[in-house]
Amino acid sequence: MTRQTVTHEDGAIYEFAPDLEAIETVDSGAALTIETRDSLDGAVQDESDVIESVPEEVNAATGPIAVEGARPGDVLRVELEAIRLAEQQGRVVTIDGFGLLDGDEEIDAPRTRLTPVVDDDGDTPSIRFADLAVPVEPVIGTIGVAPATESYTTLVPHDHGGNMDTTDVTAGNTIYFPVFQEGAMLAMGDCKAAMADGEMCGTGAEIATEIDCTVEVLADPDHDLERPLLETDDAWKPIVSAETLEVACERANRDAIELLAAEHGFDETEAYMFSSLVGGLEISQVVDPLVTVRNAIPKAYLSSPF
Amino acid sequence: MTRQTVTHEDGAIYEFAPDLEAIETVDSGAALTIETRDSLDGAVQDESDVIESVPEEVNAATGPIAVEGARPGDVLRVELEAIRLAEQQGRVVTIDGFGLLDGDEEIDAPRTRLTPVVDDDGDTPSIRFADLAVPVEPVIGTIGVAPATESYTTLVPHDHGGNMDTTDVTAGNTIYFPVFQEGAMLAMGDCKAAMADGEMCGTGAEIATEIDCTVEVLADPDHDLERPLLETDDAWKPIVSAETLEVACERANRDAIELLAAEHGFDETEAYMFSSLVGGLEISQVVDPLVTVRNAIPKAYLSSPF
Repeated sequence: MTRQTVTHEDGAIYEFAPDLEAIETVDSGAALTIETRDSLDGAVQDESDVIESVPEEVNAATGPIAVEGARPGDVLRVELEAIRLAEQQGRVVTIDGFGLLDGDEEIDAPRTRLTPVVDDDGDTPSIRFADLAVPVEPVIGTIGVAPATESYTTLVPHDHGGNMDTTDVTAGNTIYFPVFQEGAMLAMGDCKAAMADGEMCGTGAEIATEIDCTVEVLADPDHDLERPLLETDDAWKPIVSAETLEVACERANRDAIELLAAEHGFDETEAYMFSSLVGGLEISQVVDPLVTVRNAIPKAYLSSPF
Repeated sequence: MTRQTVTHEDGAIYEFAPDLEAIETVDSGAALTIETRDSLDGAVQDESDVIESVPEEVNAATGPIAVEGARPGDVLRVELEAIRLAEQQGRVVTIDGFGLLDGDEEIDAPRTRLTPVVDDDGDTPSIRFADLAVPVEPVIGTIGVAPATESYTTLVPHDHGGNMDTTDVTAGNTIYFPVFQEGAMLAMGDCKAAMADGEMCGTGAEIATEIDCTVEVLADPDHDLERPLLETDDAWKPIVSAETLEVACERANRDAIELLAAEHGFDETEAYMFSSLVGGLEISQVVDPLVTVRNAIPKAYLSSPF
């Protein structure tokens, strides 16, 4: 099958809204290449380019892409096959009013550091931060679908996905979204060449990419998905964004309980006890307007819920 | 060298206090086997044994053990060599007033589930929860030293260690504590046969163990350690306990910044930016009176700070 290409120039959004208009319509099962700009839209090309405050429009998400046949109540499966860097440098920035240690007088904001991409030996490329080499492990920061009723800027993560900044949203993994609107309306961007769990300073190494993925509609799924679910090689991970890490952890625990109870016939208490023995809670990001955690349930104890 | 054995019967504490009296004094470099009871002191042997409320005395920590020559300002290095299960069953419990989903009407508390230890095929043992096998991956829930000024029950984690419930505190890893008092006064207990990151229901599979470890005093260390630091095969991880996950994350980020700045000559902002690219924040537990996170700094970017 030919891979269809969707570029940032075809269209990009700064808000996930219920009534998005598709820039492209593709079949369920389509293989896509999606080109994304860096989260700062190319504004930072030099270390003298600093970001004074969080831009009103940030994290441009290429799309939205309608998937033929997707209806509310379905699930959209997005298999992430490859993420290639599309420029020769990333950038890490601090921004006044943003980041885990925002307001700390020892932290200088705004500041910019470029992270050049180096491919010394033809192997896996790395980026440089000062004289340190960091292996390129790309992350899609913002990926989501049209929400049910509210609108969310691309700075905000919620049940539609959005700015989840989750390191596991990377090549080799698959992410599942609830379909809230006809066509699902997939969009993605805000990629990083590398990012720590937490994304403490407010960014990873922000960079333009090309993402190879395959989209598929799962009609009438067995599991009533309320928010994104991630599949890695060895685990299923509900992803939850909320006002506080505590609330996000509680919801992520409830999601795991629901999945474990359905799989094993456990009551809620048994599933809760079991969830306390295997896998567990992981931090995605602690810097966006809502924070994000995930809850790893090893595949040894959970098959596909769909 | 002979391995010295210290048993629960020799002595155990329910409070880490500044003025602990040693039950044993050992040389720096001593190889020890420390026997620990389960966190509930054997009160739960059957599923009809339930825990109505958090006991006033819980998480008995075998010790304290004075290490010859340890002075305030030194660091105590505890290499965890092996953790063997010392009984044939663990137990998972829910307790009213405790646990991430405490108060949820779908969760039944108190309730007890036994987790028998099974060694079917002579390989790695596993525990059973219902008909599921969970590999035994022991965790030391409570481990610490005498604090500087305040006292903390063995239910509470703080800068002296204590009830950190951190899955990485396991065989093969090494944990470093600040020495606040003469002799350091090491004590440990509250082990689990298996535990999820988060310890959501409030326990793992609580079980008695024998812990092989080697203790060593690092006199006049280069790094002024304020709280526990963990060394795994591939990372250094400051461990921080605080009132909220948010505050714990901030402190764990600051600890990483201090270590990275010292290693690479970064200023705070550079270290903050770099901390946002590699490793990252991890959840230890979200259920104790203070919650605990750790921050993984890959060894590729950090050598021993001592």
